[in-house]
Amino acid sequence: MNAAPDPERLAELLCDWSLEVREGDQVLVTMTLQCMELVRAVHGAILERGAFPLMRLSPTEFAEDFYRHAGERQLDSFAPIELDELRAADCLLGVYAPANTSALAGVDPTLIARAARARAPLLQARMAADFRSCGTLWPTPALAQQARMGDTEYAEFVTRTLFLDRADPIAAWRALSGRQAELIGRLSLGHEVRIEAPGTDLRLGIEGRTWINSDGKGNMPSGEVFTGPHERSANGRIRFGIPSNPRGVEIEAVELTFVDGEVVDARAARGDDYLQAVLATDAGARRLGELGIGTNFGIDRPTGSILLDEKMAGTVHLALGRSYPETGGCNVSALHWDLICDLRDGGSITIDGEPLELTAV
Amino acid sequence: MNAAPDPERLAELLCDWSLEVREGDQVLVTMTLQCMELVRAVHGAILERGAFPLMRLSPTEFAEDFYRHAGERQLDSFAPIELDELRAADCLLGVYAPANTSALAGVDPTLIARAARARAPLLQARMAADFRSCGTLWPTPALAQQARMGDTEYAEFVTRTLFLDRADPIAAWRALSGRQAELIGRLSLGHEVRIEAPGTDLRLGIEGRTWINSDGKGNMPSGEVFTGPHERSANGRIRFGIPSNPRGVEIEAVELTFVDGEVVDARAARGDDYLQAVLATDAGARRLGELGIGTNFGIDRPTGSILLDEKMAGTVHLALGRSYPETGGCNVSALHWDLICDLRDGGSITIDGEPLELTAV
Repeated sequence: MNAAPDPERLAELLCDWSLEVREGDQVLVTMTLQCMELVRAVHGAILERGAFPLMRLSPTEFAEDFYRHAGERQLDSFAPIELDELRAADCLLGVYAPANTSALAGVDPTLIARAARARAPLLQARMAADFRSCGTLWPTPALAQQARMGDTEYAEFVTRTLFLDRADPIAAWRALSGRQAELIGRLSLGHEVRIEAPGTDLRLGIEGRTWINSDGKGNMPSGEVFTGPHERSANGRIRFGIPSNPRGVEIEAVELTFVDGEVVDARAARGDDYLQAVLATDAGARRLGELGIGTNFGIDRPTGSILLDEKMAGTVHLALGRSYPETGGCNVSALHWDLICDLRDGGSITIDGEPLELTAV
Repeated sequence: MNAAPDPERLAELLCDWSLEVREGDQVLVTMTLQCMELVRAVHGAILERGAFPLMRLSPTEFAEDFYRHAGERQLDSFAPIELDELRAADCLLGVYAPANTSALAGVDPTLIARAARARAPLLQARMAADFRSCGTLWPTPALAQQARMGDTEYAEFVTRTLFLDRADPIAAWRALSGRQAELIGRLSLGHEVRIEAPGTDLRLGIEGRTWINSDGKGNMPSGEVFTGPHERSANGRIRFGIPSNPRGVEIEAVELTFVDGEVVDARAARGDDYLQAVLATDAGARRLGELGIGTNFGIDRPTGSILLDEKMAGTVHLALGRSYPETGGCNVSALHWDLICDLRDGGSITIDGEPLELTAV
């Protein structure tokens, strides 16, 4: 089954494992035009489970147009219906399937940060712990191009990351979930995390914080465990070697220095203006909201999509901005930007001085 | 300008004439995949007016799938979010642009009537007098095929129906509106309408009822005046010579006999089972909800789309089912099915014995 993802099998996995769609659920689906094969299968699968599919065109479909036409009102607020429906819905599926990953490359980053700030309540509603929300990805030529792969090669890669090459994908995700639970058992006892790698020596306090087992519910694919570090605990520096492409802007080699939780020095070899604009989003944007450890061995290389890259086995990631409140993290921000540090070439992560075996999961 | 409709010009006409989009409006847009050129232009035009575009995939996109997968719950109810957003929205644009006008041809008509009955509150909310709602049409190969035209020929035809071949389309719609207002001035004084044509001699009471000037607001294109006849007034028979294609089912030569407002005999040369199923929707489905007179000379032939056919100059149409309450009509039903009688070949409509000049508008 080393082929493009089968839309029917993925729809089944999303409904039965990720979202646990139940009879009577109102299921929001945000989509682009590039994933209609999947969206049609999802529509049918939701109906088969006695639930109501509500298909919305993702704002990302016309994102470039949005910034060309939007005035103050649209940059600084949003339609109340958007929040109302998130609150009324039982679950949400967001499908990431862009036609062009660089759609926003030419947009002033301060405008993007401004719109994100205005839309923070929407992000908060989507991230609420009791809301079943899943972000997934469907292969498109744009994503393959960003990954520097051919379309077929990339589609096969995505199939592996979703465990759709396994005979029983749900069993495979259940097994990953069990192994991650064991890892969390160990991490939960820890007080201090230290990340060491070329250009990196950073300490973070995690005592008493809750680790989340990201096993294909909130993201599909997933394969990570994460928590919210103590907001004032980060000290040292870190170099994020994996490129980041927030909204299609290419950012490379971000280096951050932290003192008592706050970024005191920041630079990027590429995309430095974007980095500086994002740090100025709000006060929380200069502090960490998340520490995550990737465990998905189906993801063996970065491909430019954060959804996949941050799950790569042998990497850790830190997010600037908003914490997931269920971790115990308290950082509040309109920003949540994951940056990835590759440990596969001489790096390490230690918990209270004990190295973590990254091949354990 | 005898060409395909220009999406930017149509978007402008829809926003400024049909919907009168104002700053801060929440504008629902229901779309299919066949009209993305228009939808993109509409998205930009809504933003330019300071309003919020909310793009939804129309349930018609996967309508065949719906009936394949839906169970009792989905046939007999709907997602509350659908009604909530109609109530919260300031206006709604529905774009009719099917990929296949026969998508539902193989679906059991009693299922279609059942789902329509369950969704009656949504129809009611969309038809509410104080809700700015517009249904428009975008040319697709399926619509051209149904019209027995080539794609380019059909697109040019649609341009003419929209008055987008005029230098100033809004001025043209304003002129039509004025001429229809004059016609209504005369109709409003009438007591009884008589429709005569081959196979047709029907009398309807209209005294005291309000005539609506359909001048491109609720429908674009439009060009009709309509009212709700008295529910018990219809007596006689009528033959609807223009074929009807509700949900892709081909219905030809419907003949209805009325006694005191109720259908006592009904037959169709083609699609009779559908006709009978629809009449059984509810009690209101056997009574009339609307009498309309077409005035759009850009529509010079039937093309199988009710949105256009019912506006054809030289025709009258009657709807079985729900009245528009603003007419004074009181019929309540989950159904609203327009059927068209062609008067261009020897037919006539008289008001209290005075023939109406159908070339007047």
